[in-house]
Amino acid sequence: MVQALTSHELVGLLLALGLLLAVARVLGELAKALGQPAVLGELLAGLLLGQSIFGRFAPEAFGWIFPSAGGPKVFLDSLGILAVTLFLLVSGMEVNLETLWRQGRVALSVSLWGMLFPFACGFLAAWTFPRLLGHESSEHLLVFALFFATALAISALPVIAKTLMDLGLYRTDLGMVVIAAAVVDDLFGWVIFAIVLGLLNGEAVEGLAVGRTVLTILGFALFMLTLGRWLLHQLLRWVQNHSSWPGGVIGFTLALTLFFAAFTEWIGVHTVFGAFLFGVALGDSSRLREQTRDTLDRFISFFFAPIFFAGIGIQVDFFGNFDLLLVLTILTIAIFGKVIGCGLGGRLSGLPWNQAWAVGFGMNSRGAMEIILGLLALQAGLITQRMFVALVVMALVTSLISGPMMKRLLIQKGKGRRFFHYLNGKTFCNPLTGRDKWEVIGQLSAKVGAAYRLDPRAVEAVVVEREKTMSTGLTKGVAIPHGRLAGLKEPVVALGFSRMGIDFNSLDGSPVYLVVMILTPLEDADAQIHLLAEVARTFKSLHNLGEVAELTDFGEFLAWLKAQVE
Amino acid sequence: MVQALTSHELVGLLLALGLLLAVARVLGELAKALGQPAVLGELLAGLLLGQSIFGRFAPEAFGWIFPSAGGPKVFLDSLGILAVTLFLLVSGMEVNLETLWRQGRVALSVSLWGMLFPFACGFLAAWTFPRLLGHESSEHLLVFALFFATALAISALPVIAKTLMDLGLYRTDLGMVVIAAAVVDDLFGWVIFAIVLGLLNGEAVEGLAVGRTVLTILGFALFMLTLGRWLLHQLLRWVQNHSSWPGGVIGFTLALTLFFAAFTEWIGVHTVFGAFLFGVALGDSSRLREQTRDTLDRFISFFFAPIFFAGIGIQVDFFGNFDLLLVLTILTIAIFGKVIGCGLGGRLSGLPWNQAWAVGFGMNSRGAMEIILGLLALQAGLITQRMFVALVVMALVTSLISGPMMKRLLIQKGKGRRFFHYLNGKTFCNPLTGRDKWEVIGQLSAKVGAAYRLDPRAVEAVVVEREKTMSTGLTKGVAIPHGRLAGLKEPVVALGFSRMGIDFNSLDGSPVYLVVMILTPLEDADAQIHLLAEVARTFKSLHNLGEVAELTDFGEFLAWLKAQVE
Repeated sequence: MVQALTSHELVGLLLALGLLLAVARVLGELAKALGQPAVLGELLAGLLLGQSIFGRFAPEAFGWIFPSAGGPKVFLDSLGILAVTLFLLVSGMEVNLETLWRQGRVALSVSLWGMLFPFACGFLAAWTFPRLLGHESSEHLLVFALFFATALAISALPVIAKTLMDLGLYRTDLGMVVIAAAVVDDLFGWVIFAIVLGLLNGEAVEGLAVGRTVLTILGFALFMLTLGRWLLHQLLRWVQNHSSWPGGVIGFTLALTLFFAAFTEWIGVHTVFGAFLFGVALGDSSRLREQTRDTLDRFISFFFAPIFFAGIGIQVDFFGNFDLLLVLTILTIAIFGKVIGCGLGGRLSGLPWNQAWAVGFGMNSRGAMEIILGLLALQAGLITQRMFVALVVMALVTSLISGPMMKRLLIQKGKGRRFFHYLNGKTFCNPLTGRDKWEVIGQLSAKVGAAYRLDPRAVEAVVVEREKTMSTGLTKGVAIPHGRLAGLKEPVVALGFSRMGIDFNSLDGSPVYLVVMILTPLEDADAQIHLLAEVARTFKSLHNLGEVAELTDFGEFLAWLKAQVE
Repeated sequence: MVQALTSHELVGLLLALGLLLAVARVLGELAKALGQPAVLGELLAGLLLGQSIFGRFAPEAFGWIFPSAGGPKVFLDSLGILAVTLFLLVSGMEVNLETLWRQGRVALSVSLWGMLFPFACGFLAAWTFPRLLGHESSEHLLVFALFFATALAISALPVIAKTLMDLGLYRTDLGMVVIAAAVVDDLFGWVIFAIVLGLLNGEAVEGLAVGRTVLTILGFALFMLTLGRWLLHQLLRWVQNHSSWPGGVIGFTLALTLFFAAFTEWIGVHTVFGAFLFGVALGDSSRLREQTRDTLDRFISFFFAPIFFAGIGIQVDFFGNFDLLLVLTILTIAIFGKVIGCGLGGRLSGLPWNQAWAVGFGMNSRGAMEIILGLLALQAGLITQRMFVALVVMALVTSLISGPMMKRLLIQKGKGRRFFHYLNGKTFCNPLTGRDKWEVIGQLSAKVGAAYRLDPRAVEAVVVEREKTMSTGLTKGVAIPHGRLAGLKEPVVALGFSRMGIDFNSLDGSPVYLVVMILTPLEDADAQIHLLAEVARTFKSLHNLGEVAELTDFGEFLAWLKAQVE
């Protein structure tokens, strides 16, 4: 029995994997500590371990650990494909289609404008000035223009969701619009990119001819979002009932991911497309338990993803291919297209200007998705290394400016508006006696009605309607049910504490103890954002919520709260 | 940028991985449903997908999906090495060294006899009749004899733990002896096997000369179990405090696993040895949170392990290499050596004969460990495929007979002894008012003392002492604190229900509501096993424990319990 690798090669390979994981983790932690996405640290790890730094200072060790040919190279490259395929599975699982239908007109307008406008900008720019964008041959110009347009139109849902959470905007109306619009852009972006790859691979693939490839991609996408999704949910239910947990579901998910990846590779696209669509179809099934998601998400995020992203740094010479003019050009077109597109979409559907621009900068994050798109285009020979490096820089810069810009546009001008200014002994309720979230909302609505001479049924109606769209449970036992009420002059805040804990279907699954109900004037669109964001930020760092159980007197509670906030 | 694999190869590779996962999962579930270890199903999956079946009926597809050379073959083989390395990490993490020190004399006697006796049998048999055991050349006879001796001496901790849990014996004195003894045999088995591999690779390795290899192995093992373990625990604490959770710990664990694996491969042993010892050193740290363990354990068990074990079936022709005489010979020596060795060890340290034999059959399971040992020896060229197949059959048969034999020896003769015959209104306590497990034990001890005119402090003392050795919390909210009391004529059972739930440090981490305290005569060694096993089995399938909160009357409770048991 012959071993595939010599012992010497195997030692080098294990060191390679260990180094990729360790350095990516350390720099990923550093990036996080500085408030930056982990993928930035992972890419930097690849730079450190790559030709330009590690390879320059220890060329012999570099040649052993990251050889440019042979068994270990084959293994690392193939593991990279497996890694990015699994990464797209978990990215797809985060896409919840139902979010979109619930958001209606504004989200639809933002997502369409935010996709079509940058797409048009990108297409025209690439078609008119291909050489400026690093496309040197005249071959494949249409495909190149389509690719560049897609690269500008795509969003990065995970980065966007994280930015919104950090700012405390995730549960606001605006946050939900951004998430829903990003879902659409992500989904269509991948479908269009699949078509680009299909066109590019053309007759080279063994599966199908070009025209049929495009039809197959569209048909497959449509199937996975409709009938296929339904079938998968039925199948998942069967698997959950008839197999041991969680092995059955994990095995089922991973095996099907590989089969769908094989299918899309076979039709001439790429493995990631099948994995992503399978993730989308599977991910919004309520049958998929939180723990199963967590197991997949964690292992893939902390084993496969760092190996993939750090591996990019080994393969690509970032220093030698950094072209400042190209970087600035792409950055300008990318930011212009996305921010203006989304901003117009938001404004046209009724958002005030500051919110419309904030939506634009939120959607502007390209994150990991752009990097993957670029790498696939690079591997397919569609773009040059210079262009790839420029896309990576664009992805990072757009992600980095997203949070600060949203903060500036939305939150800073509302700094004087502290939610506890609106608190009131008459709307303070400790303990809450309601046994579920609807009873609690009813109880607080009655308090608000009595204190401010409002119709408690009208208050309850707007809050319940909003709650049904998407849970307002945050993390660590806090929920912020809210609504916008016509005719209100000033915001109204009611606060209650439940000793038993209420199931609010929160972000972290924990029961809710502190309920902060916030009503804002229908006409004052910013009030909701300021107050919700402030409540979310105030209670994020709170650890001893249990103390509130004793503070049945409003004065005592207010003193405690102010001590916490300062 | 050149891709390592062609698209055609990549599609085949994805299908290969998907098929290995899917078929292994389905057959693994079937095996579990029939009460057999999952590894049996996974091996069978490999047989189905291998040369003999899939390869015979669809040779072209087989040649594409599981090619015998080229990039995909390199990838699958290397992934197999990575998979078995990670599998040994989680196996090592299950080894809790502290169990041994707590069990004292009986466990030490069982483990030493249970290791040395089969080791001696194996060594003598291989030394005297090498040809009968398939060792055809006279080369490496010493190494071969050492390997065969080790293969008989090793145990399979995970299979043994599962068998004990299924029988409800995991928390009994006998169960703890078996686990502690298996820990020792596993640990020393791997150290000796590492030396065997070191001797065999001899001068072929680049690292060290033979004598120094052996010393290095022993030194490394000693280091990892003492100072290295302490250093790792400090490091783990630092990582947990200074990195994001769980990414930091998962990255740290996987990266160090790869580095230790590289180290032991470099000194001429095998990657698995470093991963296993690292797992042992890390695993008993109380700082490693349950969720981190679960994430690693689940992903590795349901992704890497099936790929490894099913992959064996692809590599080895089980049908062509099945040698009935060899299988029977090895099976006989293996069972004889382990059962007699452990049985004598148990009997000599004071166990009654039936328990001593039961310990022997419990320790006799070889499970996945034997298969890995055999595969490594096969790949090192030390044994033939015929011998490997015989070892695999031996591993499966010894695992399969373990449960039924223990049941026959321990449980069946005690069938008339139902624990609720010993229940009594005077020792029934609903609700329990104790706030932690020590208060609850004190409360139930007082009840027992009053009802049976026993000294409550003596009762409390034996139960507390036992509880300190290892928690008696089972799964699903049930705990069975127990002890053996000198002078008792008949077993005594007390039962209490806590509405708030007590932290018992249970197997599944859930709070305990139902506490069944069991005292048995010091002289009647079987009574404890019968009663504990029956309680564990009775409450394993119970889902509506909350109903007991209402049953404060003993008669009502007994009626409810009988309805549940029937």
